[in-house]
Amino acid sequence: MVILVLNCGSSSIKYQVIDMVSPRENSLLAKGLVERIGIEGGIITHKPTGKPRLELTTDIPNHTKGIDLIFKAITDSESGVIASLDDIRAVGHRVAHGGDFFDRSVLVDDEVINRIEQLVELAPLHNPANLKGIYAVKELCPAIPQVVCFDTSFHQSMPPRSYIYGLPYKYYEQYRVRRYGFHGTSHKFVAQKGCELAGLDFAKAKVVTCHIGNGASVAAVDGGRSIDTSMGFTPVDGLLMGTRCGEVDPGALTYIADKEHMTGNEVWGMINKQAGVLGITGLSSDMRDIENAAAEGNERAKLALDVYYYRVKKYVGAYAAAMGGLDLVVFTGGVGENDPALREYVCSGMEFLGLEFDADVNRGLRGKDTILTKPASRVKAALIATNEELVIATDTFDIVEKLR
Amino acid sequence: MVILVLNCGSSSIKYQVIDMVSPRENSLLAKGLVERIGIEGGIITHKPTGKPRLELTTDIPNHTKGIDLIFKAITDSESGVIASLDDIRAVGHRVAHGGDFFDRSVLVDDEVINRIEQLVELAPLHNPANLKGIYAVKELCPAIPQVVCFDTSFHQSMPPRSYIYGLPYKYYEQYRVRRYGFHGTSHKFVAQKGCELAGLDFAKAKVVTCHIGNGASVAAVDGGRSIDTSMGFTPVDGLLMGTRCGEVDPGALTYIADKEHMTGNEVWGMINKQAGVLGITGLSSDMRDIENAAAEGNERAKLALDVYYYRVKKYVGAYAAAMGGLDLVVFTGGVGENDPALREYVCSGMEFLGLEFDADVNRGLRGKDTILTKPASRVKAALIATNEELVIATDTFDIVEKLR
Repeated sequence: MVILVLNCGSSSIKYQVIDMVSPRENSLLAKGLVERIGIEGGIITHKPTGKPRLELTTDIPNHTKGIDLIFKAITDSESGVIASLDDIRAVGHRVAHGGDFFDRSVLVDDEVINRIEQLVELAPLHNPANLKGIYAVKELCPAIPQVVCFDTSFHQSMPPRSYIYGLPYKYYEQYRVRRYGFHGTSHKFVAQKGCELAGLDFAKAKVVTCHIGNGASVAAVDGGRSIDTSMGFTPVDGLLMGTRCGEVDPGALTYIADKEHMTGNEVWGMINKQAGVLGITGLSSDMRDIENAAAEGNERAKLALDVYYYRVKKYVGAYAAAMGGLDLVVFTGGVGENDPALREYVCSGMEFLGLEFDADVNRGLRGKDTILTKPASRVKAALIATNEELVIATDTFDIVEKLR
Repeated sequence: MVILVLNCGSSSIKYQVIDMVSPRENSLLAKGLVERIGIEGGIITHKPTGKPRLELTTDIPNHTKGIDLIFKAITDSESGVIASLDDIRAVGHRVAHGGDFFDRSVLVDDEVINRIEQLVELAPLHNPANLKGIYAVKELCPAIPQVVCFDTSFHQSMPPRSYIYGLPYKYYEQYRVRRYGFHGTSHKFVAQKGCELAGLDFAKAKVVTCHIGNGASVAAVDGGRSIDTSMGFTPVDGLLMGTRCGEVDPGALTYIADKEHMTGNEVWGMINKQAGVLGITGLSSDMRDIENAAAEGNERAKLALDVYYYRVKKYVGAYAAAMGGLDLVVFTGGVGENDPALREYVCSGMEFLGLEFDADVNRGLRGKDTILTKPASRVKAALIATNEELVIATDTFDIVEKLR
């Protein structure tokens, strides 16, 4: 069956068209990107597999127009990949926040839409954009079943000791302030695939997954279930990121706010947009720039790398303790897949855990699923390229299969 | 030599008089407490070893009067422990914040006082009280050498990767916002004593020290040097505490501040005084109350214990990873010394690290220096009763010895 996967942002839509015979037997028919929605000079870039690429510039006032352009592109006589829209069996959406309503992907109905709307407050930038995509498909093709996959749902298996903050309990009751975690689709995918590659039983293995990109989080996956993760109520917590601070003494923030006469909103802006690797270096939020600067001797770039790497390493140890053991460490995400230095730092000196890193295998390795430990290593490490779209397509497949 | 150890708070002074032949050969001559300084109905409670206890109620308008009362008590004809003030060889003070000026205890001079005054901004509640004690001794007995021991100085050996936050670097440069850590005197003392008890070489051992009381922090002590600790710029970070939140998503705080129209100062008050175990349970900040409530089936009390214990366990794993190994875990502080359940939770399921806990030895154990692991355990755990006054006395002894 053909599944359209949509990842709707506030001014862009990423999409993939996947032909899925089964979760294991599938092919990417096309992928593409709609940009500058609601901004002058909209553009769609459509990349069908084995066919000429299509690029079209036109004003795209809203998401409905954007999705209409996707529909036209994928059924185009030259660059199209399906004969008509009737060939699309279902649409799978990435949705940022499922709160504690959703512990799995679900078929969209009015109740589900209602819940996602209630969660706008917890994800004010993302959930509204995701909803626009759902509404647009409903408007254009009301008969196509839609499925929503949440960044948070994989982490809903966390026990309360992991998700309750040390704050007055009323804030949890009134405002649902708790740890939710994000990147769940990716953590689940790479934990599972890493276990396959390492010959481990996913249902029994203790896995730490490191999804390290511009946004970054670590998860403890014990017997196939997330039991803890580094992102929290928001995606600003945990690891150092491109522009996000990650873990920080809250007292440092109230001190700075007092000194600089900053409001809560200004602090929120600062820790999200001016902090992280960019904040420490003053140079860039892109790790490639930082690694180049460090190689040229920039001290602050070296410091940022050191902080960045060190935090990942500490989470591996913390989550091993949380699970009472460790079988596998997985690296994924833009940096996790493409930065051998990160992987070497995190896995070095971990022999006391039974992890014997193979620096030779790791050297120069980018983006290819690989076991990174020596054959005799009791604890394994692996690079696994993430594929969140495939997880969304698989969940969508599984749900619409049951509709037959 | 006789050393007077002073721990001056804003309205109280704790003291000990220690006769020290050498750091290993010493005896406690007296201890006591001055309370309600500047508040009506001041009181001094003097407890000399082997002599009648003295209690006196009188108005104590300021620290000078308080210290004068201590001088009178320790030279009292009946309850005194020294013949005259000339017998006091030196006074050692506990000082909360040494910033990044002080990486060790030092003899007090004008320059030192000046530095401690500069640091008032970083410890507005504690440093001014500590200074009052120094001024009072200077006024009453200008000839007695004074030594200051900082809660922060042991952690000054941390590398930048541990102390730099993921915030714009200017806040570090302008306001010295970084991790400092606290309880340093205790972490150092119990790490050293724990190594002795476990037969480890302090200069080589990898130790995680858990100082768990109403305030609580964990430190990674690698080869005798602190390389990381859970408290940060302020003592609100890290573990769950009696009324302090410990680690929390900063985005959760800006969200709550927005919802509740709270200022930065109000957030600071909330995370320090209404959070932690008290915040989760709504019952008490005292762990004994919480354990009793949990035993009676109170769900929120059980939850608070779970969060409290779980965080300690994660730090043990994180710091083992940070040090690339682990030889010893030490428990100290009011809860660490007196709560067998905490120690059992933290050390259970840690066999993958080579730590085999001895639950039988631990059961019912309170306050007595004891190895908590089985004889064959590669990684040791120990209960070590902390004695910060003895560290202050020892540092003072070492410094005045060199003055001769």
